[in-house]
This record gives sequence, structure tokens and C-alpha cells, in this order.
Amino acid sequence: MHGREFFTARTVAEALAGFRPARRTLVETVPLAAALHRVPAAAVPAPGPLPGFVRSTVDGFAVRAADTYGASDGLPSYLDLVGVVRMGEAPTVAVPPGGCAAMPTGGVLPAGADAVVMVEYTAEPMPGTIEVTRPVAPGGGLVRADEDVVAGAALVPAGRPLRAPDLGLLAAAGVTAVQVHARPRVAIVSTGDEVVPPCTAEPAPGRVRDATASALAGLVADAGGEPVIVGIVPDDPGALETTLRGVLPDADLVVVSAGSSVGARDETAGAVAALGEIWCHGLAIKPGKPTLLAECDGVPVVGLPGNPLSALVVFRLVGVPLVWRLAGCGNPPPEPGTRVRLSRDLASAAGRLDVVQVTVREGVAEPLFGPSALLSVLTRADGYLVVPEPATGLDAGSEVEVTLYR
Amino acid sequence: MHGREFFTARTVAEALAGFRPARRTLVETVPLAAALHRVPAAAVPAPGPLPGFVRSTVDGFAVRAADTYGASDGLPSYLDLVGVVRMGEAPTVAVPPGGCAAMPTGGVLPAGADAVVMVEYTAEPMPGTIEVTRPVAPGGGLVRADEDVVAGAALVPAGRPLRAPDLGLLAAAGVTAVQVHARPRVAIVSTGDEVVPPCTAEPAPGRVRDATASALAGLVADAGGEPVIVGIVPDDPGALETTLRGVLPDADLVVVSAGSSVGARDETAGAVAALGEIWCHGLAIKPGKPTLLAECDGVPVVGLPGNPLSALVVFRLVGVPLVWRLAGCGNPPPEPGTRVRLSRDLASAAGRLDVVQVTVREGVAEPLFGPSALLSVLTRADGYLVVPEPATGLDAGSEVEVTLYR
Repeated sequence: MHGREFFTARTVAEALAGFRPARRTLVETVPLAAALHRVPAAAVPAPGPLPGFVRSTVDGFAVRAADTYGASDGLPSYLDLVGVVRMGEAPTVAVPPGGCAAMPTGGVLPAGADAVVMVEYTAEPMPGTIEVTRPVAPGGGLVRADEDVVAGAALVPAGRPLRAPDLGLLAAAGVTAVQVHARPRVAIVSTGDEVVPPCTAEPAPGRVRDATASALAGLVADAGGEPVIVGIVPDDPGALETTLRGVLPDADLVVVSAGSSVGARDETAGAVAALGEIWCHGLAIKPGKPTLLAECDGVPVVGLPGNPLSALVVFRLVGVPLVWRLAGCGNPPPEPGTRVRLSRDLASAAGRLDVVQVTVREGVAEPLFGPSALLSVLTRADGYLVVPEPATGLDAGSEVEVTLYR
Repeated sequence: MHGREFFTARTVAEALAGFRPARRTLVETVPLAAALHRVPAAAVPAPGPLPGFVRSTVDGFAVRAADTYGASDGLPSYLDLVGVVRMGEAPTVAVPPGGCAAMPTGGVLPAGADAVVMVEYTAEPMPGTIEVTRPVAPGGGLVRADEDVVAGAALVPAGRPLRAPDLGLLAAAGVTAVQVHARPRVAIVSTGDEVVPPCTAEPAPGRVRDATASALAGLVADAGGEPVIVGIVPDDPGALETTLRGVLPDADLVVVSAGSSVGARDETAGAVAALGEIWCHGLAIKPGKPTLLAECDGVPVVGLPGNPLSALVVFRLVGVPLVWRLAGCGNPPPEPGTRVRLSRDLASAAGRLDVVQVTVREGVAEPLFGPSALLSVLTRADGYLVVPEPATGLDAGSEVEVTLYR
């Protein structure tokens, strides 16, 4: 973190690269059934090799490969059937030179054998004699005892959220609990004299229900965080500072959605400045310029614009990677996207990132405009596109990458 | 559903288009805080208009637009400041002809006014007089009372999983609980004499821990379902039939991961045929051919290949859309993907869908090969590509769409 730099505006790229609080959540142990999308604190080593024994990958006969060399339809090898390997059981036979044992897919290779010939290339012309019409090389038709995983190798890496197949590999290795970073606790503070709780049946004239907190809670949950909706603080510098002092000790990240009046915009800055260091106040992004990034007692604090749509745009771009990072994941999972044509010209200012909500139909992205105060724009949008900082706009018909909501 | 068609092989496209059980889960009411990614059973209508009052979108002065016509820097309009509108409060003033009232962003437009002129285009040359240097049109600087949402309009549509911004719009409208389809209960049955629970410390020779159930549970959860790991059933037709009879009444979908031995592959079909109708047995997909789709007492049953990797590939393609559909979502959320170059030739058979696990580095997809029995292939992969049914392969260097894991 840099020193105190008051009222510094930043580009989004600078914010993503530079605002990187050192804080990480503690490590906790969770059972496999609760580990999906959690972030391992360290690579999980395999306690032993997998599959753990030399395993047949085909139905057929365990053989000594050398006994099949030169075998063909015209000149088969004939082997003595010395026994049967049963599924899930240790072999009770060994394969001598000139012998073979019947094998199921997944069976344990018996002693003496070094390959499994597929049943399709065999026949049993008389009971107890197996005819082999194709040669098999040593190692054919089987996997080594450590071919899936070598003992001690990483089953899953540190820092990458666990996916469904990871849970399978951990289960296969007998790892039934994983050490992961705790879910970052994200305190969501709403401010504004005009803001009332969503449960308010009939807001008084001029009052609006708190939309931002519920939506932020969803984005936090999607990023693997644990949202804590703190409630609504009136437009009063002392009240916000008191609230922040109360939530900082138990939070890994604090998000303040500011009231939309002029004074409210500065109150967050004032309260945060009293408690820590402001890293930037103002982002070169539209919508979302009046964004504040700060650190108080090692806890990152994000002050969002009062406009709900702007707040959500900024939190998705800047806050979501922060939540992942707090849980030890520096490279968040990819978002869905699509390359489509732009329906119309889009103007932008150089040096500013523009985030444009769009619908996507038949390969065409149609920007959704209207006053930025409208939340329904976000619910109607299929996704968004970004006009990058250096660009002064995008032309109609140009190919654009749209990040799709899911 | 079709009538009994025993041992019918199908393409994946046929399965996706044709295997569509009518079953849907019941409807339940959940609070907003638990509604993320849940599927609304019906469109949720707005109880009233949003924002609910004529709202200023700028800081400035509420005016009668006609009073500003022709205003310029050289010839400003001069208006009497008749009062101040406070944030979150009903206006206590009305704006008469030639008058104006100070307005915060988000304030209620006072009676008489029909526009808000931005503070940037005003000055106060003497106390109580406001100079306006730009004209504003009626409706300028404000949003209508129903501009975000008209009363009765759908806040969110039926059938689309709720996203974070949807929760915000619902909160704004005072909707704090939503009627959604219940999470589909997916019973996961493992079979195979060789399969032991993941908690087994030292599997006996030939035994393998159940990897598939844990991984399937993850895929089910990702699709909004509620996985129920039933446990391991021995390779015994009667045992599987008894287990299926027990789980069918409480399940919306039953998944059976078959043992990998030849006999086990047919046992699922036998047990399912005794309880319902088999829609197909065999999919034109690699890996994953020995897949079974059936319906028993209106409950879809998916019989998966014994190989964990094959089972997960098939479930992702065929089972995941089924879980979404059971919850009333016919169009599952998009998966992340990327268009990259293929590093090498890939052969495939026409009429068969090939699913190839790949790593992606610097715009190049590198196929991961090796025996299909290896589960670690899935955990090392960044995603997969599909060689479509009509194709006989893909050439090195061709552009391919990779679905990325997240």
C-alpha cells in the first residue's frame, strides 16, 4: 500500500494492479461436501499413488506380453487359462509363461503378467485355452499404480477455487477434508437519509428502498464471500465513523454504498480518512467515478457511488477480484463471454473505462441507454462490454467482447 | 416421452432435444437473501412504479422549463429561489412561474416544476436570485415516477435464475420473498463391488474409493440442485432395484454411476427396466458411450459409465441441463469459454460427439490425452472442446471454442 494520497483519481487498471491489501482470511478445515468453490490454502498432496495398483483398463486376459509377440489371425498365440481375477479383489492367481488370467476392466493385474489383451482379440477354442490374435506390448491395456497421481504430488493446487472434478480426485485419494481460506466477511454499509429498508411497505415521499445492499450481497456470495448487511446509516459523518469502527474488527472488507447527495459523497471520505488511509478517491470509469478505495486497520474499504447501477458496475470490476484475493485466489474463475457485433457507435473519453450494459440477440450487442439511475437496465441486460481506457469510442459493426451475466 | 425402446443408441443432440421429462419441482417461497440463482416460478410483478416519484438525476434547481428557453451565457434567465427540496423528504415548496427550488440528486420534484437545471449551468449573483445560462427541456434532469419500472410490469422473468442485480431491483420494489422452484433433489447412487467410501483409509487390493459421487454432487450443486449421496450398492441386480425403489419417491432425478465391469454395465439397465422405461441405452459420445437415459414413475434416471471421467463428461453435457430444467429453467446460464487455436490434429468418428479435455495457454488449446481412466486429466484441464457429431476431426491450427471450467 502507498502512503496517504488524498483525493487521487486512478484508472481501473491502476486500481486492479495497485490496490492490493495484504490481508488474507484465516485457514479453516471443511469437509469435502462443503468444499466446492472454496480456495485451498495450500496444495493438497496425494497421501498415496492413484489408482494405487496396476489396473486393467479393458476387459480381457492378463498375459506376459512376450507370449503374444507375432500373434495374428493367421497365427494366433495359444495360452493356458490359469484363473480369473475378480473385480475388487486381490488376484488369487499368478500368470506363468504361456499362461493367462481372465480380467475385468478395473481389475488388479496378477503377478507375472505385464499386459492385458482385449477380449475382442481373443477366443476360447476349447475350455481352458485362450487364442490371442493380436500382440500386446508390456503395459498395454493397463494403467500403472501411480499413473493417475504420484504419491505426494499435488491433487489440487493452492489458490484455485475447487471445482466438481477436484472433489472427485480428492475423494479418490481419501482426502475427505480440505484446508481452505475462510470466506471473506464483507460488511455492507448503506448510507443516505433517503434510504429505507427493502421491507418498508410504503416509503414516505422521497424515500427509496435499499436496492444496493441486496445486490451487493449477491455479488459477494458469487465471489465466495460471506455478505453481512449492516444496515442503513444516516447522512451524518459521526454516524458513519461510529458504524465503521464497529464493523472493522469483524470484517475482511467493508463496502459503503454512499448516499447520492453531494454532501453524502464526501462523508464517506471524511469518515474513512479519520480511520485509515485513502488510496484513491475517484476512478476513471463511467458509470462509477465517485469511487473510493482505502485501507483502515489493514481492512480494505470500498466506497461506492450512491447510484445503485454505478455501485454494482464498480463492485463487479473492482470489488469482486478483491473478495477472491482476500480468500487467497489471485486469479478469479473466468466469466462467460461472447464475441458479437456492436449495433451502433459508442462514444467514450480517452483515459476513461466505459462500461456499457447490452442485450445480445443473434450475434449483435445492443447498448441499453437511459438515465444511469435506472436499476432495471441491469436486470434487462444480458451482459456488458467495456470501452477500454485508451479508446475514444467503438464503431457500429465492430466486433466486441461481451461479458455475460449468469 | 416415447414408449419402451430398449437398447436404443442416440446422439447427444437427440438426447438433449428429446429426453425431456415433464417433471418440475414444487414451488416454494424463499427470502431475498436466499434467492440468488434460484429460478422464479412466475414473473414477479412490480407492486408499484419505480422510483415511485419524479426524481431528480442531477444536483441543481427545479424549474419550469419554459422559464429557461433561450437562456445563454450572454443572456441568462433570472429566477427567484423560492425554497430548498431536502433529500428524502417531500417538497415543502411549489415552483411558481419565474421561480426555482434548490434540488439534490435523488430529490422529489416539487409541484409546478417540470425540469431540473444542472448546478453547473447556474450561478447565484445575489441571494435569492438564480441565474440560468442553459435552457432545459421539460423532463430534463429527472426520471419519471415509473421510468425504471411501471407498476405491474415484470421485475424479473420466470425461468431465469436470479442474478445479483435482480435481487437489487426486487428489494427496490419492496419484494422481500420470491416464489421459486424447489432445488431438484438428485439422488446419486454408486454401484460396484470394487467401490468403497472416500473415507476408507486403506482400501483392500483392487478396491477404489468412490470419486464419482463427490464430483457429481459438485456438478449438481452448480446446477442449482440438491445432491443426495445415497451410497454404494454392490453389483447385484436385486440390490440396485431395491435401492432405486427406495430413492425414487423422494428424488427429482436419480443418477446411477455404474460399476466398470461388463456385468455391472447391464445391471443398471436391468434394474431400471424393471421400474420404468428406458429411453436410450448408449450415447454417440466419447468418452461416455455406455450411458442410459430412462424414466421411472415420472422421475428421470441417468445411468452413467463406470469410468469417473466419462461419467462426469456425460453428466456435464446431459445431466446438468436436466437439473436446470427440473427447476423450471430451460435455458441454463452460459458457461465461460474462449476461442483458441488447436495445437494438434484431433481425429473423430462422424456421427459421434468427442469431448476432449484441454489446457489453454497463450491462445492455444493443448489436448490432454492418456487412458480415459485417469481422473487427474479433469483436474489438470482448463476446459474442454467438442468435436461435433458431423465432423471427422479437427486440424491443428484451427480455431476452436473451449468451454472453460470455473
